[in-house]
Amino acid sequence: MKILLIIADGLGDRPFDSLGGKTSLEAADKPNLNTLAREGMIGLMDPIRPGIIPGSDTSHLNYLGYDPFKYYTGRGPFEAMGTGLTLRGGDIAFRANFATVNEQGTIIDRRAGRIREGTSELAKQLNLKIEGVEILFKEGTEHRAALVLRGEGISTEVTDNDPHADNLKPKDIVPTSEKGKKTAHILNEFYKQSFRILKDAPLNVKRRSNGIKEANAILYRGGGEVPSLPNFNEKYSLDGGFIAGVALVSGICKLVGLKNFTPEGVTGSIDTDVKKKFAAAVEALKEVDFVLVNVKGTDIAGHDGNGVAKKEFIEKIDAALKDTVMKVRNEIVVCFTGDHSTPASAKEHTSDPVPILLRYPGCRKDGVGEFDEIRAKDGYLRLQGSDLMNVLLSSANRAEKYGA
Amino acid sequence: MKILLIIADGLGDRPFDSLGGKTSLEAADKPNLNTLAREGMIGLMDPIRPGIIPGSDTSHLNYLGYDPFKYYTGRGPFEAMGTGLTLRGGDIAFRANFATVNEQGTIIDRRAGRIREGTSELAKQLNLKIEGVEILFKEGTEHRAALVLRGEGISTEVTDNDPHADNLKPKDIVPTSEKGKKTAHILNEFYKQSFRILKDAPLNVKRRSNGIKEANAILYRGGGEVPSLPNFNEKYSLDGGFIAGVALVSGICKLVGLKNFTPEGVTGSIDTDVKKKFAAAVEALKEVDFVLVNVKGTDIAGHDGNGVAKKEFIEKIDAALKDTVMKVRNEIVVCFTGDHSTPASAKEHTSDPVPILLRYPGCRKDGVGEFDEIRAKDGYLRLQGSDLMNVLLSSANRAEKYGA
Repeated sequence: MKILLIIADGLGDRPFDSLGGKTSLEAADKPNLNTLAREGMIGLMDPIRPGIIPGSDTSHLNYLGYDPFKYYTGRGPFEAMGTGLTLRGGDIAFRANFATVNEQGTIIDRRAGRIREGTSELAKQLNLKIEGVEILFKEGTEHRAALVLRGEGISTEVTDNDPHADNLKPKDIVPTSEKGKKTAHILNEFYKQSFRILKDAPLNVKRRSNGIKEANAILYRGGGEVPSLPNFNEKYSLDGGFIAGVALVSGICKLVGLKNFTPEGVTGSIDTDVKKKFAAAVEALKEVDFVLVNVKGTDIAGHDGNGVAKKEFIEKIDAALKDTVMKVRNEIVVCFTGDHSTPASAKEHTSDPVPILLRYPGCRKDGVGEFDEIRAKDGYLRLQGSDLMNVLLSSANRAEKYGA
Repeated sequence: MKILLIIADGLGDRPFDSLGGKTSLEAADKPNLNTLAREGMIGLMDPIRPGIIPGSDTSHLNYLGYDPFKYYTGRGPFEAMGTGLTLRGGDIAFRANFATVNEQGTIIDRRAGRIREGTSELAKQLNLKIEGVEILFKEGTEHRAALVLRGEGISTEVTDNDPHADNLKPKDIVPTSEKGKKTAHILNEFYKQSFRILKDAPLNVKRRSNGIKEANAILYRGGGEVPSLPNFNEKYSLDGGFIAGVALVSGICKLVGLKNFTPEGVTGSIDTDVKKKFAAAVEALKEVDFVLVNVKGTDIAGHDGNGVAKKEFIEKIDAALKDTVMKVRNEIVVCFTGDHSTPASAKEHTSDPVPILLRYPGCRKDGVGEFDEIRAKDGYLRLQGSDLMNVLLSSANRAEKYGA
């Protein structure tokens, strides 16, 4: 059987005042999710472990069977993927900032006045090649960016240049071991070259003449090596694909070798066309054996503290299931869950377990016909994220017996 | 207190159509199991881990406290035990086939026409001694058999001779390291000697004259060393025994040092005398502190896809409890569970968790008075197989405090 894994990002929630003390999932009108629950089983899953607050990166890695305690190499590589850069195992990635330095080279604003526009133009000019090493530079939100090195002989064994405070000079870039020598040299060279390039960039010329802080220096920190992950398809002897509007998730999916079926025009925002994603997933399942779909709106509404918007986005998800997933549900394994909780009351990720729904032809039914975080405790499943792939594969009759 | 662990093999099930969508355990009339449930607690147990499909071997090892990821050395040794051979740590065991080769030595049927009868006579003649190494050879079902080497200097570091396809010659038997040299030599010698012996065996003479494919060659594969398991009685400071009609389970029990109390005449089949087993268990508990009883019929009915037979076998188990276990239940720890699920709808082992029942004098009661896979989710226990011995020992006041 084929497997459809739908991850509503940040799905889990807590009681929310303007929803009468219900969670957004409890409050939502969700006839299709409830049907799936009634026909299958629900329960609770700790994305990582109880009390561990997952990121979308660590939980997606864990769900796909890549132990984050082994493979998660820090925020640098994963935030870099979040900018949309397609990375490869062995790349060295740093979190970077556009910053403002004065003529003496002292940082007067680590965030370049929280610059909002035009960083894309600046970033493009910083894709350089220094001594055979490729520099990939990509803007993120506001002053944030990713700095990636790709090439022979590079290493994370260098110091950061970000002093984490204004009115200081960027810190010296020095190797912390023999291995880091080349990288330190390249990063020093990059700082100098990028300073020259940024100084003359039209955006900065304009900001200077308007008396606005220039984005004229690059600070970086938190370097990590992009992990070389065993290929998903080989690991599980199947062909896998994904659909995701958000760069961090698609970056991880690409890194493990899942094929991209994301249709044109869908996004990671709350007004995305969820039905288009589900329809594409059903279509993709004709070609591959496993499809992961990430819908991000639940997480965004949660971060916004908007429980009502979260409830409405869940209703949009539910409606989108109707003419897509519901029509093929008797032929596949359907799993619906979240990658973590982003309660609207908390506006942040929390470690609350996520509700999970599992339905496949002939499965046990736990008799719980409503799918939410609270009913989930009466359901059948108590899983940890690291169990998920094994449970999905065995549900799909794709697992081998361990023993005789 | 003493401990009785009853394992109904393959007990766990899924909804079954001819049982009105109930599982065999749900549908069964089981007043005694329900009484035990009402007087104690029930719940769910993952025999290995969620999503891992257990074999009877890996789950029995895990339940007895032997981590299969450490001690399970492959199908060779455990299938060999399944033929009824009593093995020792250090033996090298292979899965073997009776096959048919033509005069040129080419395999014309890897399964010797799926020979069904007479292999016992053939196997007996293949118990040889070559260069001081004992060869134990025992028939299994149909063309299957076990080939075991016992002696000094043997090793698994040799190639298989089974080419896994017809119209090929048996593969060369060669050592894969220096350590495997002696074993490769012995296996080559065994192939030659067994060929001469089988050629002249009355059964093959008869088959030849009837134009039926002879069982004249031995192919083997999947060698593994029988693990040396720490003795159960020493590990837990108690005397343990077992009752099992099925060779694989009794092989494992013998290997860990449990004493055999299996009465004459009971079997691993569906028409076995379950009451005789339980009566023998109650009797054995006068002598030892721990008794494992395996009843196999549930698994057999599951593999047969016969949910109704499975339900009836469960009713037979329940009835057999009445004048045996029920009478001593206030003096002992009683645990009733399965080693894995073999849903009649799946006809195979699945990874579904198994229901478990635990009752001892003075224990917590969870108020769930019906014992089945679905009600189990409302019960008290959520265990993994590796927890079982600890739970049983502490229930019996046989565990030591960890700390002060």
